[in-house]
Amino acid sequence: MTEGEGGWVDALRARLGDRVSVSAGDLNAHAHDEGTPYTCIPGAVVFARSEADVLATLSTARESRVPVIPWGAGTSLEGAVLPVPGALSLDLSGMDTVGEVDPVGFTVTVGPGVRRMALNRRLRPHGLFFPVDPGADASLGGMAATNASGTTTVRYGGMRENVAALRVALLDGRVLSLGSAARKSSSGYALKHLFIGSEGTLGVITALTLRLHPLPPATASVQLAFPDVASAVLASVTVRGLGVVPERLEFVDAETVRAVNRHRDRRDPEAPTLWAEVAGRDGADVDAQLALLREAAELHGGQVVGEARTPEAQSALWAARHGVYDALRAAWPGHATRIGDVCVPLPALADTVTLALHLLDERGLTAPLVGHIGDGNLHLLMHALPDDAAAWARIDHVLHDLAAHAVAVGGTCTGEHGVGLRKRAYLRAEHGDALDVMRDVKALFDPGGLLNPGKVVGDPDALFEWRSDVPTRP
Amino acid sequence: MTEGEGGWVDALRARLGDRVSVSAGDLNAHAHDEGTPYTCIPGAVVFARSEADVLATLSTARESRVPVIPWGAGTSLEGAVLPVPGALSLDLSGMDTVGEVDPVGFTVTVGPGVRRMALNRRLRPHGLFFPVDPGADASLGGMAATNASGTTTVRYGGMRENVAALRVALLDGRVLSLGSAARKSSSGYALKHLFIGSEGTLGVITALTLRLHPLPPATASVQLAFPDVASAVLASVTVRGLGVVPERLEFVDAETVRAVNRHRDRRDPEAPTLWAEVAGRDGADVDAQLALLREAAELHGGQVVGEARTPEAQSALWAARHGVYDALRAAWPGHATRIGDVCVPLPALADTVTLALHLLDERGLTAPLVGHIGDGNLHLLMHALPDDAAAWARIDHVLHDLAAHAVAVGGTCTGEHGVGLRKRAYLRAEHGDALDVMRDVKALFDPGGLLNPGKVVGDPDALFEWRSDVPTRP
Repeated sequence: MTEGEGGWVDALRARLGDRVSVSAGDLNAHAHDEGTPYTCIPGAVVFARSEADVLATLSTARESRVPVIPWGAGTSLEGAVLPVPGALSLDLSGMDTVGEVDPVGFTVTVGPGVRRMALNRRLRPHGLFFPVDPGADASLGGMAATNASGTTTVRYGGMRENVAALRVALLDGRVLSLGSAARKSSSGYALKHLFIGSEGTLGVITALTLRLHPLPPATASVQLAFPDVASAVLASVTVRGLGVVPERLEFVDAETVRAVNRHRDRRDPEAPTLWAEVAGRDGADVDAQLALLREAAELHGGQVVGEARTPEAQSALWAARHGVYDALRAAWPGHATRIGDVCVPLPALADTVTLALHLLDERGLTAPLVGHIGDGNLHLLMHALPDDAAAWARIDHVLHDLAAHAVAVGGTCTGEHGVGLRKRAYLRAEHGDALDVMRDVKALFDPGGLLNPGKVVGDPDALFEWRSDVPTRP
Repeated sequence: MTEGEGGWVDALRARLGDRVSVSAGDLNAHAHDEGTPYTCIPGAVVFARSEADVLATLSTARESRVPVIPWGAGTSLEGAVLPVPGALSLDLSGMDTVGEVDPVGFTVTVGPGVRRMALNRRLRPHGLFFPVDPGADASLGGMAATNASGTTTVRYGGMRENVAALRVALLDGRVLSLGSAARKSSSGYALKHLFIGSEGTLGVITALTLRLHPLPPATASVQLAFPDVASAVLASVTVRGLGVVPERLEFVDAETVRAVNRHRDRRDPEAPTLWAEVAGRDGADVDAQLALLREAAELHGGQVVGEARTPEAQSALWAARHGVYDALRAAWPGHATRIGDVCVPLPALADTVTLALHLLDERGLTAPLVGHIGDGNLHLLMHALPDDAAAWARIDHVLHDLAAHAVAVGGTCTGEHGVGLRKRAYLRAEHGDALDVMRDVKALFDPGGLLNPGKVVGDPDALFEWRSDVPTRP
């Protein structure tokens, strides 16, 4: 039903006034995510300020049968927030209140539009932080919706482990309160977990209660170079066996170190490299952990490139790891990037890296390989000129082969970016009959297919499912 | 449908031969759990040896419309494994294979009937262990089915955090493979989490892949006495802020210390008491953690009762905590026990303990209070003569008031024992509209109400739902 046909924009305006926009600027600002090349212009954007606004939006969507696509910060990489062309983008960025910090239970309740960096600025005076760090300054609602994780997941877990409770607005107008500030429960079915990672296809998150963690009293970092990827993986396993769980444990491949050396005029060994940050009670504690990291590295043929204890020295040490993206952009001016991720069981990680390098080579491509090595989570930072269709096709081939491989070795097609539109093709191989059950669950919450339709469990061959008169292949 | 009417036992025998039993001994052995006073004699027991046996059982159940109640070790406390009288108990204890340990990814795949103590004996030579410790020597399948947790959850999480993957047989004959050995995923809906804690009402767990942890290189323990419960809670919070996460952090109330003193001829201060076990890289590491525990305790008026570093000394120190149950049995010979649990947000824990003591006093009862204090999880060890109906009614009143209080302060009616039959009454208050969604989910997996019917999301006023000619109130 279009605006002209059903007047759904008028119906929205009657309920939400100037929180509804059809200005070209607002529509275009919600037409892209940060990872997919599609442009999908919505018919209207609602800038929700409250749960009541979300319910009013869902009510109109239900009555007018217009698809609703929740929008947090737009930092999605696999198309999860792309609107159905002509339909409704529900922007939650204005629901950005941060509640009182509970200094005993270490929780805080926030709106879905709160960004993680702003949250951590608010938490710092309390001596607490929210650890999940996907890189982008994403919204907490979006992070829960994709079960985001990142560099600190090796120690703290991802969103799933750090969302204590959710409020979720359903399409039928009910609001569910799922989970609690209690640290555990065996009461009833884990609906909270069903919504974490559902990418807005089952309901709209209107509030989150998050688990917080004390800021570590002391930290230190080390950079380690290894003869090969397998040695780096084994060193990370040995470290854990020695009783050390790093805050972060990051990997890049040799080629990438070479690129960063060129870009930053560094002379780091051009070998598979780990960066580890450890946290502890005090300097002696982190020193002891660094000693065990050195021991584990040396046991597997690794060498220490550098160590750092002060915040400034640590920033300098990590600059090489954090400089990967800049080095890529400097080396390939004008190129666009696409970051693909898979996650495999740790015993399969070294071979997966080898395969990734082989696939790139086979297609005449280069791409930095960056991994959250403790989790078996590998990222490829692919790049090409925006209009080089042949290159993007080769990139698609590599990412396809890698996702298929990850599933074949018992891993997952997406470790932390979500399914969105582009990982749907792997869900049958990864989940088997469980995909049908997921579709039954989708039908339970959204029988009319109006909540972020087509995403996650949708038909992988259909780009969007709504109106036949709107082009769906941009 | 009874055996005579539908011949379902004959149908089972045709498929499963002597793995089907109707002997009085076998039926009676599956008529009780360890926490509820009901006797519910099943019509037959299937001793499944394989997933194929489970599927054959479910097939017969579906065709003959006979309820199936999965049975692991029978250590359930809230009635989750009690059969529907006259129906089918599906005993999974024979599915007890332990797969190869993955020494890189730290996982192992086990049958649902494997008991946790046997598993840990198998893991020890690999330098690994499975941390979830609910006290009882439960089966891993049963532990996943109730989302069990326990003393080590403060550090390692419960079953939800430590089950990497599940195989689940559905009533319709499909087998779902949920999750993977990859350490994280953002791929599709979290069906694995839906089954964890579903107590056999949605499907039957036929295999589990578990996350393992390295045995700590060093441990030490401390016993701390506090002027009041609130001080003990605050000390536990301070400890976390100082960067120490104990392996275990256990609480008992003053009266209970008194009872253990009498029973064991000890002279521990009769005050609210914490026991903490810390783990670390080496002796210096655990010594430093003990020093911070002392500091945190003293800051909140606590005093050190004892410290222990060797395994023997630690056993002696913990004996007072572990002696609670024995002291209870010694003080009240012939009494039966009922352990109730709730879990509340940490800021509400001290008041919850105070309320529990008040409720006991009001009803003229005594009960040791034992808590996993880092999780806000409180247990009451109630006791009475088995046939003292008035006492059991008073006990029910106390546990009812406490569960209602836990929900009212934003906690949960059951931290780790599950819902079974007896916590169903609190699900509406705890979950609101989400209870209706849970019932929709139940109907999706089990439209005929044959999988552990009436449990978890069933009508709290009905004890069992099957045949009107079988007495359901024992």
